[in-house]
Amino acid sequence: MDRFRATMKVICSKDNLLQGTLIAQRCVSPRAPLPILNGILLSASNNGLIFQATDLDLAIECTLPAEVMTEGTVVVPARHFSDIVRRLPDQNITLDYEPAHRLLTLTYGSAQFNIHTMNAEEFPLLPTRPDTPTLEIDQITFKDMIRQVAFAAATDPIRPIFTGVLLEIAPDYLMLVATDTHRLAKNKLVKPNTDFDDISRTIIPARALNELNRLLKDEQSSLSIFLSPSQIVFYTEEFLFYSKPIKGIFPDHQKVIPLKIQTKLSVAIADLLPAIERASLLISTKDGNSIVHLSIKQHCLTINSNAVNVGSVHEEIPVNVEGQELEISFNARYLLDALKIINAEQISIEFAGQLSPCVIRPVSEEDYLYLLLPLRT
Amino acid sequence: MDRFRATMKVICSKDNLLQGTLIAQRCVSPRAPLPILNGILLSASNNGLIFQATDLDLAIECTLPAEVMTEGTVVVPARHFSDIVRRLPDQNITLDYEPAHRLLTLTYGSAQFNIHTMNAEEFPLLPTRPDTPTLEIDQITFKDMIRQVAFAAATDPIRPIFTGVLLEIAPDYLMLVATDTHRLAKNKLVKPNTDFDDISRTIIPARALNELNRLLKDEQSSLSIFLSPSQIVFYTEEFLFYSKPIKGIFPDHQKVIPLKIQTKLSVAIADLLPAIERASLLISTKDGNSIVHLSIKQHCLTINSNAVNVGSVHEEIPVNVEGQELEISFNARYLLDALKIINAEQISIEFAGQLSPCVIRPVSEEDYLYLLLPLRT
Repeated sequence: MDRFRATMKVICSKDNLLQGTLIAQRCVSPRAPLPILNGILLSASNNGLIFQATDLDLAIECTLPAEVMTEGTVVVPARHFSDIVRRLPDQNITLDYEPAHRLLTLTYGSAQFNIHTMNAEEFPLLPTRPDTPTLEIDQITFKDMIRQVAFAAATDPIRPIFTGVLLEIAPDYLMLVATDTHRLAKNKLVKPNTDFDDISRTIIPARALNELNRLLKDEQSSLSIFLSPSQIVFYTEEFLFYSKPIKGIFPDHQKVIPLKIQTKLSVAIADLLPAIERASLLISTKDGNSIVHLSIKQHCLTINSNAVNVGSVHEEIPVNVEGQELEISFNARYLLDALKIINAEQISIEFAGQLSPCVIRPVSEEDYLYLLLPLRT
Repeated sequence: MDRFRATMKVICSKDNLLQGTLIAQRCVSPRAPLPILNGILLSASNNGLIFQATDLDLAIECTLPAEVMTEGTVVVPARHFSDIVRRLPDQNITLDYEPAHRLLTLTYGSAQFNIHTMNAEEFPLLPTRPDTPTLEIDQITFKDMIRQVAFAAATDPIRPIFTGVLLEIAPDYLMLVATDTHRLAKNKLVKPNTDFDDISRTIIPARALNELNRLLKDEQSSLSIFLSPSQIVFYTEEFLFYSKPIKGIFPDHQKVIPLKIQTKLSVAIADLLPAIERASLLISTKDGNSIVHLSIKQHCLTINSNAVNVGSVHEEIPVNVEGQELEISFNARYLLDALKIINAEQISIEFAGQLSPCVIRPVSEEDYLYLLLPLRT
């Protein structure tokens, strides 16, 4: 292909060069299956300088302003290139590609940095850009939804479906659900701005959402989402981010949410979180987990935890309780995960008995739900 | 010993408990040769609560205010204890030691944390406190001297003398010197407040000075130093820090400083540092080092570096040069180390030929000197 045998010349500010490189580098994995995937593809086009990278599961593309003298492409080794760009002086950098020796020269002031580049012909073609988005959402809103849900997905790839997050789009809501079979997190955003008249379900790798989260801004600027059977694309004014969906049927989360509530308590996160954090220091299982025992009585939640030859803790927290008294045990880490990500001062916890999952919600809003299985002790 | 079989009871604020624990923990090494050295000895005495820890090479002691009800001692597992204290509520904590089961109970509000403690009889005795200091110096001054010198000591323990820093005290100066045989750093503080009428030399492990540096404050409060053949003690109002000296004769650093200067240049650190940082990215030796080649001509310093199949760099920096033109090569890392710690805008570099060490000094002051051997290329 001729485009790989041509010279390329472009002038780009150090800041833009660094920004594009750092965004693209998010999809460069040190465990990439092919050497070429350790590279970033730079393309000088009439739109500016385009940065592309992929690990074959995820892919990313962003375009930044640059003065293009000669259009062309080059693949630079990602880590080495970002190390260099980071240390360049804060000025315009000229990038000059000379295909005969595959050398890219960065010129700044009276200095030149020559970089041996990679074989651009080996770089995989990225998917085509989608025409119209399936839906649009505020970046900051979606960022918070990811933060509150994706952590509950499984990290063990033995059952791939549980390493994914369900994205469900309906005419009147947008929902994310993740579960590792021990706990389940769900965030349902009612009435987003969709033109949908059906229900669509896609399972996105939690890893893709976590990477996306690092790219999103804490701002009310728009994120477009495009869904197709073979591809999920998230894009903003700054970047396009591609992921493959996980194939399979996501388990029906409605079935596991208990209906008969026997005990309900409300408690301040500021009281419960530090107490559970202290209890979690007492590792009591072989795989490094701590078990906390909760004893729920009228107006009082008692927390006990102990580890042989290490120590024990006993704490009492004032709470509001409705319904029956209860003794129940949990993995401290799973409780902590929820307490750390809920944006509320008070939570309610609903119990359906000693062996049934409990449901944790922020008191003020109905969007979020965290379901947790107790331990049999 | 009876003192280990007694109860102990003391009330201490969470802040003081945490401060003492974190200071003592600096001398707890995960590679300690005896299990008891993973502990912190707490002693309730009429002075307050004393925290002690040691790894047999270094030792530390600090005393913090506490309301002592019953004097006594207990050894707590350092890491577990600091994890707990960090998460305690911000209030007074009651520590209650019950020797029959060797349990320490922390009480805060209506909660109790019980900790299995270690056998205090196994804890090594710390050295006795010195009566009068050998000299006193501002903490911030000594901190800066350590920062500018200790990094030049060797990390490889094959020749122990080079893992130490020479502390030389004379009637009219205080001096630190360190060398790993490739480079040498020296800071000579003229006219400190000493009652010395002789010259005293001690070799302190660089590791001890680096740990001390973390304990010192960026303030003009006093640090006392006590030297004896078997012990070096650094102490402030907050802590005592003990180290053994390294035995042996420190090499004569005066002999290696070249007298016949052939070339002298002065250059801004802001110009030289980023250029050497960029050059250092081109790793050219098997052990992961980069070689920078300097070409010194009238008004111009040219920096070249290259690595096969990776790339090359060529930069020119405006400088003032006196004397002969010169081509010389250095290990980039050793040059960078000096450029990063010198507190000055301009440095002078004095060369005595292509194969002789060069001397780097801050332009404005004579206290500091960094000597660096060139590479033969």
